[in-house]
Amino acid sequence: MTVMVDIVEVSPRDGLQNEATLLTTADKVELIERAVRAGARRVEVSSFVNPSRVPQMADADELMAALPRHDGVRYAGLVMNRRGLDRALTAGVDEINVVVVATDTFCGRNQGMTTAQACDTAAVLVQAAREAGVFTTVTVGASFGCPFEGEVPPNRLREVLTRVRDAGPDELALADTIGVAVPSDVTERLTLAREITQSRTPLRLHLHDTRHTGVANAVAAVQAGVTTLDASIGGTGGCPFAPAATGNVATEDLVYLFDRMGLPTGLDLEELTSTVSWLERRLGKQLPGALLRAGGFPA
Amino acid sequence: MTVMVDIVEVSPRDGLQNEATLLTTADKVELIERAVRAGARRVEVSSFVNPSRVPQMADADELMAALPRHDGVRYAGLVMNRRGLDRALTAGVDEINVVVVATDTFCGRNQGMTTAQACDTAAVLVQAAREAGVFTTVTVGASFGCPFEGEVPPNRLREVLTRVRDAGPDELALADTIGVAVPSDVTERLTLAREITQSRTPLRLHLHDTRHTGVANAVAAVQAGVTTLDASIGGTGGCPFAPAATGNVATEDLVYLFDRMGLPTGLDLEELTSTVSWLERRLGKQLPGALLRAGGFPA
Repeated sequence: MTVMVDIVEVSPRDGLQNEATLLTTADKVELIERAVRAGARRVEVSSFVNPSRVPQMADADELMAALPRHDGVRYAGLVMNRRGLDRALTAGVDEINVVVVATDTFCGRNQGMTTAQACDTAAVLVQAAREAGVFTTVTVGASFGCPFEGEVPPNRLREVLTRVRDAGPDELALADTIGVAVPSDVTERLTLAREITQSRTPLRLHLHDTRHTGVANAVAAVQAGVTTLDASIGGTGGCPFAPAATGNVATEDLVYLFDRMGLPTGLDLEELTSTVSWLERRLGKQLPGALLRAGGFPA
Repeated sequence: MTVMVDIVEVSPRDGLQNEATLLTTADKVELIERAVRAGARRVEVSSFVNPSRVPQMADADELMAALPRHDGVRYAGLVMNRRGLDRALTAGVDEINVVVVATDTFCGRNQGMTTAQACDTAAVLVQAAREAGVFTTVTVGASFGCPFEGEVPPNRLREVLTRVRDAGPDELALADTIGVAVPSDVTERLTLAREITQSRTPLRLHLHDTRHTGVANAVAAVQAGVTTLDASIGGTGGCPFAPAATGNVATEDLVYLFDRMGLPTGLDLEELTSTVSWLERRLGKQLPGALLRAGGFPA
């Protein structure tokens, strides 16, 4: 049986939110159009959050208005509160992604509330979005470790995942926000999540390659049957509210990996690396993804 | 059962041979002393090859003479012919590593002979080294792909591994010289090697992180029962005779990985990252390993 790996392109959101250089709305449209041309079918296009906190995402509404629509392509917006949800729904997103951080310290810094409060908020947002006919994801940030509290014990994650499950999202994502996970953690925590959801809620994994374990963790996820993975063109990204949080796992690195493993992603490596090259010029810096410089398998 | 992962430190050899900056012999001694202080027990210290071809390794004999000896620490030298072996034995290495490249094109560029000729040479060198009481490894370069010929079919690798097995080394290494392997390749080809050696010859894997699959491949190797892995402090390295061959998988990246997976390596992450910092100053460049900048798991 051939497994299909579904990569959710998060470069316009998690990728750009940590960059010093702000892209114009037109450049963001171009990035997203290029991602779609490369085969992306789900794109997290922006965050509907306070622009004074994340200025890189201030144009979320204009961006959605400017984006061409394509059959079979879904645009998602990250939201953290009712105001963000209302903006996202008005802007016409196909999906919302609600964040809950697994530790109180980090949740406080990220969104000004405790984890329990964030879970309650998520429940309200999920229900409101569902009534509006929008697909809902809840992402549990720092599922594998916290920059402030260190270890996130499995029992703590169990509690948070249980509350998140009870919020009733269409999809539940675990995020390794600071890139500390190793494959055995991925196996353990995805198994825990599956146990809690009793396999009724599809799972998704959000990885960072901060400690070069991102690709290995993606393999562990697929081996554990979780085939929806976030990634970012060029490996851009990071979290503005977590120290030393560097890039997401690079989309093109995962595409090389899964192509060679015989697992289709529907994404085109050459389109992706040409987009990395374009994005490096726009951001004025080299991005961490390997494939632009390494090239694919030698012909 | 806790598996121990044995990392062979190859930075002084494979690491430095592709660097534009030549380290002094004293600096190489310091690098090796630092590796040993970090816990390395096997160090590939140099290549006994033609200095006009690899000037970075021209001081192999002086380096061996200058190196302090430590109980339980073995120094290896790479050799490709009788002249190199004689130099290595005179210099007092504990191990030799003989290279055979799996494709004729690359083998010709690397060492001026066909793969078959390199296998014959390896057999002679292994026997002579054994008579001198020296541990022998044969490394099959380009076991996962060739920069010139592309795919290396399993049947080709089977032929080469069979000839190498017949040469009778104490250890057989597969090298992903240009960093193209993915975990499924590692599983497949280590299984093939084990079948050919009938588990009588210990296996070892040499990885490059050119396409960010190095850490994932290390995990696949350990899952397949191969726990002797080459790595290079800082992720230095590459092959002077292969285009776009970049660094070895970084020792410190593997140590973070295996520490967090509960698999002891006997290596100390802080000693390693302080060595990466020192080596970056010596080479005047940033090295690709992640852990120096990312830091370990947050306390």
